[in-house]
Amino acid sequence: MTADGPAIPMRILGSGSVLPGPAITTAEVCARAYPGRDPEELVERTGIQTRHWAEAGTSHASLAADALRLALQRAGLEASALTRLIQVNCTGGDTLLPATANAIGDRLDLHGSCDCIDLNNACTGFLTALDVAARSAATGLHPVGVVVSELWSRHLEPADPRSFVVFGDAAAAVIIGPGRGDEGLRSSWLRNDGALRGSVTLAHSGLTGQREIVRFGVSNKKITQEATEAVLESAKTALRQADLSMDEIDWVLPHQPNGRMLDLLVRELGVEARKLVRVVHEIGSVGAASIPVSLDRLWRSGRLRGGERVLMVAVGSGISYGGMVYQVGQTP
Amino acid sequence: MTADGPAIPMRILGSGSVLPGPAITTAEVCARAYPGRDPEELVERTGIQTRHWAEAGTSHASLAADALRLALQRAGLEASALTRLIQVNCTGGDTLLPATANAIGDRLDLHGSCDCIDLNNACTGFLTALDVAARSAATGLHPVGVVVSELWSRHLEPADPRSFVVFGDAAAAVIIGPGRGDEGLRSSWLRNDGALRGSVTLAHSGLTGQREIVRFGVSNKKITQEATEAVLESAKTALRQADLSMDEIDWVLPHQPNGRMLDLLVRELGVEARKLVRVVHEIGSVGAASIPVSLDRLWRSGRLRGGERVLMVAVGSGISYGGMVYQVGQTP
Repeated sequence: MTADGPAIPMRILGSGSVLPGPAITTAEVCARAYPGRDPEELVERTGIQTRHWAEAGTSHASLAADALRLALQRAGLEASALTRLIQVNCTGGDTLLPATANAIGDRLDLHGSCDCIDLNNACTGFLTALDVAARSAATGLHPVGVVVSELWSRHLEPADPRSFVVFGDAAAAVIIGPGRGDEGLRSSWLRNDGALRGSVTLAHSGLTGQREIVRFGVSNKKITQEATEAVLESAKTALRQADLSMDEIDWVLPHQPNGRMLDLLVRELGVEARKLVRVVHEIGSVGAASIPVSLDRLWRSGRLRGGERVLMVAVGSGISYGGMVYQVGQTP
Repeated sequence: MTADGPAIPMRILGSGSVLPGPAITTAEVCARAYPGRDPEELVERTGIQTRHWAEAGTSHASLAADALRLALQRAGLEASALTRLIQVNCTGGDTLLPATANAIGDRLDLHGSCDCIDLNNACTGFLTALDVAARSAATGLHPVGVVVSELWSRHLEPADPRSFVVFGDAAAAVIIGPGRGDEGLRSSWLRNDGALRGSVTLAHSGLTGQREIVRFGVSNKKITQEATEAVLESAKTALRQADLSMDEIDWVLPHQPNGRMLDLLVRELGVEARKLVRVVHEIGSVGAASIPVSLDRLWRSGRLRGGERVLMVAVGSGISYGGMVYQVGQTP
C-alpha cells in the first residue's frame, strides 16, 4: 500500500450527534450583532436560520461524552470496548493540560482501558481523526471512538459580528472497527498549507494575556475563493485515488461553513442535491462537527445502502483541506 | 494483527533536538522562587542543575521547525518528502485555531504537500504521536515527521515555585519511515485514566478569563506514587506484549520529570544505569520532549547498534501513560 494506494480497511460501527442548548434564531443574533438590520437579509446572506448555543457551564467533556454514548449504543458496544478515544475540536477544549479527552474518558467510566487523546486540525479535524482511526483499525487497534465537540459560543462576541452570526455548537461521534471485504476508505487525501493561516483564527489567551475571540482575518470573498479551490482539489484527488468518478459516488458530505458557500461548492463539484445531507441552515457553522453531524443523519436516515460510496470533503483554517471516499459495507 | 499483537513495521530515519535560549541554573530560579533558600538543597531535591528557557518571542513554530530540519537532514530527506507532520506539545502551542502545525509547515516551505496536525496527550504525547506515525507508515503513509516543542517558560511564575523550578524548554523530532525486516514497534501500549487528571494542569485562559500557569494540584508524594505505578505497569505490559524480558532490552528511555523520580523509576524497573540516557539534570522537566531528546542523543551517540531494542515508557498529566519497544533495524 502506498500513500496514493488502495483502501484502508475499516468500518463505521455506529454514530451519534448532539445539539446542545436551545436553537437560537438568526433574528436573535442579528438583533445583538447588527441592531436595526433586517434579519431576513442576514438569513439570506448566511443561509443559516438557526444554530444551537450550549447553556453556560456546558463542557466539551459532557457534550462529547453524550455524542460518544449514542454512537456506542448504536454500535452495540460498551465504552470499555474502545481501544482509543480521539477528541477533536478547534478551540482548545476544556483544558490545555491535561488533554480534554481525559475528562471524556472519565465520564464514560474509562480508567486505563484505552488512550484518550486530543487532536486539532481546525474544521478538517474530523477527517484527520477518521484517517488516524482507520489506520489504527487497519493495524489491529480497534474499535476507536472519534468525537468532535465544538463550543464556538464560548469564543464569540457581538462586537465581532462576522463570526458571531455564523457559528454554532454541536458534537458528533463515530465508532470505527475493522473492515470486512471491500469496505473502508478507498482513498484518504489530506493536506495543509500554512501560508494561508490568517483566515479564521483564535489566538491563545494564555500567550496574549487577553480574552480572545474567533476572528475572520480576510474578506469573505477571499475565504470563499481559497475554500472553494481547496475543496475542488480535495474532491478531485480523493476521487482519482479511489479510481471513481463523481457519478459513482452516492453521497457527498462537504464541510458546511455557511449556506452560500455550500451552494457554491455543490455547484462547482457538480453534485445533485439528492446526494447531500444539508444541515447548515439548521445548525450553522459547527467547525469540525459539520461533516460528522451530516454523516450521523445519513446513517440514521435508513437511506444509506450496502455498497454505497460516501465522498467527504473538508476545508478549514490553516488552511487544512482534504477528501476521502468511504465505501460502505454490505450491511451498513 | 491484534491490539495486543506483534510489531507495527516502521523505522526511525533520523532525529534532532534543540535547546532554546540560555541555560538557567537552579541557583537563578531558586533566588526568584525561594529567596534566601540554599540552591544546593534544591538541586539535590529536584536532580536538576540547569534548564533552558527560550528568549522572549520564541514560537513553537520556529523551535519545532529547527528540530525537524535537523531530523530531516540526518534522514537525508527534503521536507517536501513528508506525507504527514504531527506537532505535539502540552500547552496549546502558538495558536488554538488554526493548529500550530500549519506555521511549522510554512517555515519548512510546505504548501499542500502533506497534512500538518496538532496532537496533545500531555507528557505521553510523543509516544502517542509515534504510535500514530508508525500506524501511518505501516498503512503506506510515509515518511512522517513527529515534532515535540515545549515552551513551559511561557506558563510559569515564581509565585508558583513548584512548577517554576522544574520545567524547561526543548524541542525534538523524529522522521518515521517504513519498516524493513523485523524492525519496528514490537509493542505499543498506551493508556489514559481521567479520574486522576488533577495532578499537573494548565487551564484554558480563553475560558477562565485570566492568566493561567502550570500548577501541581496534589502533593509530590501522590504524583510520584501515581507516576511510578503507571510507569511500572506500562513497562511490564510493553515487555509482555513484545514477548521480551528486561534483560533483552538494550536501552531504556523513561520520561524524566525530575531527578529523584527518575532514580525511583529506574530502581523500581530494575534497570542498569548504562542502559539509560540521562538528560533531566541538564534540561529539567521538558514534558513530551523528554523521551525524544534522550532518543536523539542515543541516536547520535554512535552507541546504538543494529538489532538492539529500546524500551520507551512515559507518564504524564491525564493521567496518560504507556510503553513501547522499538526494535532497531540492522543499520540503525
